[in-house]
Amino acid sequence: MAAWGARLAGVRGVLLDISGVLYDSGEGGGKPIAGSVDAVARLKRSGLKVRFCTNESQKSRSRLVGELRSLGFNIHEGEVTAPPPAACQLLKERGLRPHLLVHDEVRSEFDQVDTSDPNCVVIADAGEGFSYQNMNKAFQVLMGLDTPVLISLGQGRYYKVTSGLMLDVGGYMKALEYACGVEAEVVGKPSPEFFKSALQEMGVEACQAVMIGDDIVGDVGGAQRCGMRALQVRTGKFRPSDEHHPEVRADGYVDNLAEAVDLLLQHVDQ
Amino acid sequence: MAAWGARLAGVRGVLLDISGVLYDSGEGGGKPIAGSVDAVARLKRSGLKVRFCTNESQKSRSRLVGELRSLGFNIHEGEVTAPPPAACQLLKERGLRPHLLVHDEVRSEFDQVDTSDPNCVVIADAGEGFSYQNMNKAFQVLMGLDTPVLISLGQGRYYKVTSGLMLDVGGYMKALEYACGVEAEVVGKPSPEFFKSALQEMGVEACQAVMIGDDIVGDVGGAQRCGMRALQVRTGKFRPSDEHHPEVRADGYVDNLAEAVDLLLQHVDQ
Repeated sequence: MAAWGARLAGVRGVLLDISGVLYDSGEGGGKPIAGSVDAVARLKRSGLKVRFCTNESQKSRSRLVGELRSLGFNIHEGEVTAPPPAACQLLKERGLRPHLLVHDEVRSEFDQVDTSDPNCVVIADAGEGFSYQNMNKAFQVLMGLDTPVLISLGQGRYYKVTSGLMLDVGGYMKALEYACGVEAEVVGKPSPEFFKSALQEMGVEACQAVMIGDDIVGDVGGAQRCGMRALQVRTGKFRPSDEHHPEVRADGYVDNLAEAVDLLLQHVDQ
Repeated sequence: MAAWGARLAGVRGVLLDISGVLYDSGEGGGKPIAGSVDAVARLKRSGLKVRFCTNESQKSRSRLVGELRSLGFNIHEGEVTAPPPAACQLLKERGLRPHLLVHDEVRSEFDQVDTSDPNCVVIADAGEGFSYQNMNKAFQVLMGLDTPVLISLGQGRYYKVTSGLMLDVGGYMKALEYACGVEAEVVGKPSPEFFKSALQEMGVEACQAVMIGDDIVGDVGGAQRCGMRALQVRTGKFRPSDEHHPEVRADGYVDNLAEAVDLLLQHVDQ
């Protein structure tokens, strides 16, 4: 049993990353990570508050939740904090009309947003949609603006699917930043606003919450900067070098979500 | 007449960028910039040494020179310093076997290079070849190496074709750098080695040479860091803000190559 388990005392709410923690996405809807279906169920039965906090921006929430439910997970759309709704809110508040460089699967999340005569670019994990032509179009829109605004749904470097590692939106965000000489605004982890909205939706203070994720920077580092505790699972995009990351040290490292939940249920009330 | 023309005294050799200075590339082979065909001819007749120093990495030199000749330019393959041959030299010296993410047009420049069992990635301006699938493959090769080596043929932000601005290789280089946590080695301008090899091939010292280009950073800044003088033309990718660049100040700004040659021929012997 990990000696650091005592650090989990007083936790009242748990934020769970989805991809790489609950399941690995991929062909045919992906594959649950061993023990995770049961771990989510146990967590929910325990009385701890649970919320799913994902940077998934390639699928709509309803599609994502549908896939997870078909894999056996107890999860509902209203429990998921994801970048597209947060981005829509921000666009509305600032009167921004986006040119969308997003996956067709997620376009419906922007149905209520005015996309005529764009005055900004929104980029998400477009997958195969990251063609040269689509990137060039986004680049040209930005270069045509007096004050170019680039909004990126997440800034992940890569994610893991059943067949291996895949480039995430972050690289493409960096490409546009460099080509246009702009700095993107990130909606999603590790943005503090994003974690704070997830905490608010869960009704728990940062100091009473723990984040469990596979991304040492986006999940662990981001949550810690908001005053949360954070565990890294050794599944998904985890790489052994993460345990010696030069800037971020998790409160604990666990083999998988099942081990995290074992520890949580053992220590939270102490 | 520009007051700074006197700074051109003592110039013996001229390095000319190609795209945006001689011509704008594009559909049907592109279009010469007004006055540039005659300017190159006058420069060659003047007795000044002339060399073409380009970051073009989407076409082979023979294809590029063929296109330029058909537009009326007096140019030969042996007068062109371009990244692919410099990259081949570097790969050979270091025993590197590249995975190539390059345009089909330029693949022939790497015919003599061993590409089996890759231990590095070479990225060039692949144009439409920058598909998600091709980028992901390059990413996966790098992530699979113990010591990932990424070599980029140039690091341009964008270039101009007849139909507008186009994303160059630099953004894609940044995307792979970020996703893989590596720093690319750049072959091409503004790398000092590249300018030095162009000077050597021309047989002129840096202090006796002037670079003429449309890229304030890659052409002007790079050449100046090597001890050359440098002029920026207001053609190609030039943008008015370049004349107030926070880091680079050209020795002079001219409307086009024709004006640069007028000034050179007037001042070099003084």
